[in-house]
Amino acid sequence: MLPFARVAVIGLGLIGSSLAHAVRAYMPTVRVTGHDASPDVREIARCIGLCDDVTDTAGAAVIDADLVVLCVPPGAMKAAAQAIADDLPATAILSEVASCQASVIAAIREVLPDVTLVPAHPVAGTENSGPEAGFATLFHNRWCILTPPAGTDPLAVARVEDFWKRFGANIEVMDPAHHDLVLAVTSHLPHIIAYTIVGTASDLEDVTRSEVIKFSAGGFRDFTRIAASDPTMWRDVFLANKDAVLEMLQRFTEDLTQLQRAIRWGDGEKLFDHFSKTRAIRRSIIEQGQDDAAPDFGRQHN
Amino acid sequence: MLPFARVAVIGLGLIGSSLAHAVRAYMPTVRVTGHDASPDVREIARCIGLCDDVTDTAGAAVIDADLVVLCVPPGAMKAAAQAIADDLPATAILSEVASCQASVIAAIREVLPDVTLVPAHPVAGTENSGPEAGFATLFHNRWCILTPPAGTDPLAVARVEDFWKRFGANIEVMDPAHHDLVLAVTSHLPHIIAYTIVGTASDLEDVTRSEVIKFSAGGFRDFTRIAASDPTMWRDVFLANKDAVLEMLQRFTEDLTQLQRAIRWGDGEKLFDHFSKTRAIRRSIIEQGQDDAAPDFGRQHN
Repeated sequence: MLPFARVAVIGLGLIGSSLAHAVRAYMPTVRVTGHDASPDVREIARCIGLCDDVTDTAGAAVIDADLVVLCVPPGAMKAAAQAIADDLPATAILSEVASCQASVIAAIREVLPDVTLVPAHPVAGTENSGPEAGFATLFHNRWCILTPPAGTDPLAVARVEDFWKRFGANIEVMDPAHHDLVLAVTSHLPHIIAYTIVGTASDLEDVTRSEVIKFSAGGFRDFTRIAASDPTMWRDVFLANKDAVLEMLQRFTEDLTQLQRAIRWGDGEKLFDHFSKTRAIRRSIIEQGQDDAAPDFGRQHN
Repeated sequence: MLPFARVAVIGLGLIGSSLAHAVRAYMPTVRVTGHDASPDVREIARCIGLCDDVTDTAGAAVIDADLVVLCVPPGAMKAAAQAIADDLPATAILSEVASCQASVIAAIREVLPDVTLVPAHPVAGTENSGPEAGFATLFHNRWCILTPPAGTDPLAVARVEDFWKRFGANIEVMDPAHHDLVLAVTSHLPHIIAYTIVGTASDLEDVTRSEVIKFSAGGFRDFTRIAASDPTMWRDVFLANKDAVLEMLQRFTEDLTQLQRAIRWGDGEKLFDHFSKTRAIRRSIIEQGQDDAAPDFGRQHN
């Protein structure tokens, strides 16, 4: 028995388009409607046959849906909720995929105070954006974190859980505030650091940008991948999860200062001890299936 | 006509063992001898048949070589030079692969003032270490930077260049000091940042290590790869290239402070502008064949 029969996806970027592909691949009898605020994106989505129907308004997409998933950047969530408010069926479950939940839940609640809201954030992605970047297996063996606000109908939570499990995702249920702290360290901090270092490297006087690109295989190129992520989404994430991100940045800076001091004073033992500890984390990530065991992420060397 | 007939590799870690594999794959008539200071490593190298001969002393490995390549961590270069000093043929060319050149060249020169020295640093690697980590195609389409000290015989430089080109490497010749600055930004800064962030993430009170590992696909796992690199080598690199690394860290910290301030004050425009610029660098790296065009480094999603 499928958890939903008619799914509406609002926002057809990487996550929205992957969700549409996944529903069609794993639940082929479910009807998927889609909408995106951009006419260009709607046009592409129609050309590639992403959904059963791509509608020109958000309202038309949700009018007979039993699950509506908002897949827009955090800063656009409130407007998306407003755009569907008049047409959202009273029995429909509303979900969204934001990487920061507390402020997004609050924004949606302002517009739709009585909606059954079950946020579900799939911790998955690539550096690509847009309706052509999605693929059905993106969520396979990745974690999807549900952050239902206190008091949410447990049956609604169970249906959303069932929905995501069908894509091969693992489910964790978390308080929205704790989710935001966890993601600040596992996702937001790495992104702001990567964006920073790529900027630093491209703005030097004594080393040309061409040299930075040529010799990037020394480690730098790893950082350029996540620094190629969608600028709008990441702007919104940092603004929406400000406190947790600033807290993590503060800790990172303290730790960096300590290693910097060890370099300045030639304290090889402190450096060696630190570098030995961090190796173990990589091993755990691979053991738990959260990254490829192949060296160099499995990049091709030939 | 092959540039060398008898190659000795001192230090059989990732780079040394890859070099041995590459010589056998691309110049099968060349004799390769190897030595490592660790008896365990020598034993493994013998078991897997890495070289034509693995010798118990460094001197025995180089005694009839026409090219000797030191593939030990920067801090061990001087001792390696001392270990071969009595047996190095007068006509042999000495090379080494260090990621920081000025201090390593000076250390070798102290022991071997009259040697023909042509350092060659292949900007290539994986996060794995040891004699079993190497493979013949590691240098393919990667850059190898030669940093011959002023006054080096141009014929010797040309022979080392020819040698590396046979592995599919591209060659750049650079002043040692400039090399160290370029590598400080493309390799050393990314490594110290990755080592830092992985440490920060594993030392939190409110987010468990298990959560960090589980939800690492949000971006964090990318950093764990280079933070799993060899602790001894990286300790040595940071100590040996101290000034350039500290200079890059200073710039990085300034840039991070600026983005942190933009987050604190809600300056979305500044964040968006920065994030849009960094995207372009990734595109150039892919266009120039220095990274995989496949999303997510080509990781498998199934």
